[in-house]
Amino acid sequence: MLETRLDIARIRAARRMIDPVFLDSPLYRCEALEPVLGCAVSVKLETANPVRSFKGRGTELLAGLLTEEGRRAAVCASAGNLGQALAWSGRVRGLDVTVVASRSAPAAKLDRIRALGARLELVDGDFDMARERAAALARHDGIRLVEDSLDIETCEGAATIGLELVDSATPFDAVLIALGGGALATGVGHVLKTFAPGVEVICVQPAGAPAMTRSWRGRRVVTTETTDTIADGVAGRRPIPAVLDDLLVVADDAVLVEEASIIAGMRMLLDHAGLVVEPSAALGVAALLEDRARFADRHVVTIVCGGNVDMDAYRRWVLEP
Amino acid sequence: MLETRLDIARIRAARRMIDPVFLDSPLYRCEALEPVLGCAVSVKLETANPVRSFKGRGTELLAGLLTEEGRRAAVCASAGNLGQALAWSGRVRGLDVTVVASRSAPAAKLDRIRALGARLELVDGDFDMARERAAALARHDGIRLVEDSLDIETCEGAATIGLELVDSATPFDAVLIALGGGALATGVGHVLKTFAPGVEVICVQPAGAPAMTRSWRGRRVVTTETTDTIADGVAGRRPIPAVLDDLLVVADDAVLVEEASIIAGMRMLLDHAGLVVEPSAALGVAALLEDRARFADRHVVTIVCGGNVDMDAYRRWVLEP
Repeated sequence: MLETRLDIARIRAARRMIDPVFLDSPLYRCEALEPVLGCAVSVKLETANPVRSFKGRGTELLAGLLTEEGRRAAVCASAGNLGQALAWSGRVRGLDVTVVASRSAPAAKLDRIRALGARLELVDGDFDMARERAAALARHDGIRLVEDSLDIETCEGAATIGLELVDSATPFDAVLIALGGGALATGVGHVLKTFAPGVEVICVQPAGAPAMTRSWRGRRVVTTETTDTIADGVAGRRPIPAVLDDLLVVADDAVLVEEASIIAGMRMLLDHAGLVVEPSAALGVAALLEDRARFADRHVVTIVCGGNVDMDAYRRWVLEP
Repeated sequence: MLETRLDIARIRAARRMIDPVFLDSPLYRCEALEPVLGCAVSVKLETANPVRSFKGRGTELLAGLLTEEGRRAAVCASAGNLGQALAWSGRVRGLDVTVVASRSAPAAKLDRIRALGARLELVDGDFDMARERAAALARHDGIRLVEDSLDIETCEGAATIGLELVDSATPFDAVLIALGGGALATGVGHVLKTFAPGVEVICVQPAGAPAMTRSWRGRRVVTTETTDTIADGVAGRRPIPAVLDDLLVVADDAVLVEEASIIAGMRMLLDHAGLVVEPSAALGVAALLEDRARFADRHVVTIVCGGNVDMDAYRRWVLEP
């Protein structure tokens, strides 16, 4: 049994708490990508749901448990996707949700959080500043603080993706997972290492936001002063020690990719797969582009984890020549 | 019991013949579309599979039956999506597939047909010319002719979408279905009228390719000399009498939409839902845009039936100001 905070029985039980609209997302070969990438590529598509990211799996679990505990309110910091998902899950259950986000988060994400009826508080500064403010709000108002990647439900909700991968009929050799706070990577990694230990679990982070990757490599928490990436969903500076401990157990590798590769990945997913993705969701393809030799002739799954992107920025990155 | 060529028991059985990668496609609310459209909108997304359209449901059924009959080859005419899907389903089963298509079909569709190992024959002229050529090839070579919408498997494969709609937990008032040859509309319509007769079944066709809609309205086959629409997937001139008969039983309405509305629909699906769709797949949203009063405050499902589009054309239609 793997020594992480996650638990397979709880992950299986989580499926019953999560609205089916977030479960059993498409998993399919994208052969049109393959001549360019030089390997077999399947996509696990987490954008075709009401919040357009995988985060609904975790917030459904969280909001369900909070409701069972009789809680009426919760606050979270978010780069945008967690907040949108928690707002969605909270609205269904009559839970008051407050989201603290950076003023520089994509407007598309902030607009959806407001539209879903959550209270949105913006901070000057980045995601880690929002985390501090959310914690202060929770203390002051006496409401539950939801912490992405630290709260085990965010990891175990994401881990249901892993169950769907190992239950699929198609064998594959490696899975590429966007690495930010670590909920997705530890969740999916835990399930894969339990049921399919031969599948390589590879985390991918932007070179401009490398804190968790450096921490994984050094086997101790490494923070950075700043981040510099368009991949807003994974731009953290301060890894959480307990999450790093889990990641050290389940990840086979953590790689860093350049901004140009992220943009090239977004463009490839549009041109050859018809998928509009946010930068974090192109990290896997970026990794394939940067190391074709490593993946040659293998079958790789990339988790397309979110599609919330400002269209103006998207046009600028992807569509202009 | 509805008097059409379709049969619910066979449609249920079809699910067992179809590769699961084509089944249980996402169905979800797109709230970001709703302020503009003035109604509740859910999307049934048929683009997240290996052939990026709903046609795999029908070709899986067809190719499975052909294989059971010991057939080794098949030929079809296609606007592009059926051919791609038949090539995919044929390749899995060792069936030689020939596709006849118009030279003016989108290169994206033709390239994928070739890449999947089918023999591709191009004709000067439109889809109905390709139908004639495919029939001649079948006679000459003594191989099975697959005819979209006439072959009941193409309708009953598409009808599995209807089963998924009626099995969903969300109640809805109307479903908008792209109308071309009629396989999708008769298939989904048959299931809805059987199990949810109160749901309005509305077919949508481009004003530039109105043959089937005019036929439905006149209750007799009406052909046109030409078509003029970017919605290549539904641009037929010669409705099939047996399909029209079925459509007269299951459709509540058939409406025509303008090209500008199709483009506006494609743009809305990109900007507010992050979906890249081919023109035929935007017909439902186009219908909502053209008649907001009709749909006000109702819950509408639109089937996003395909995403195979030439990116150059897409950029021109959707992305340039």
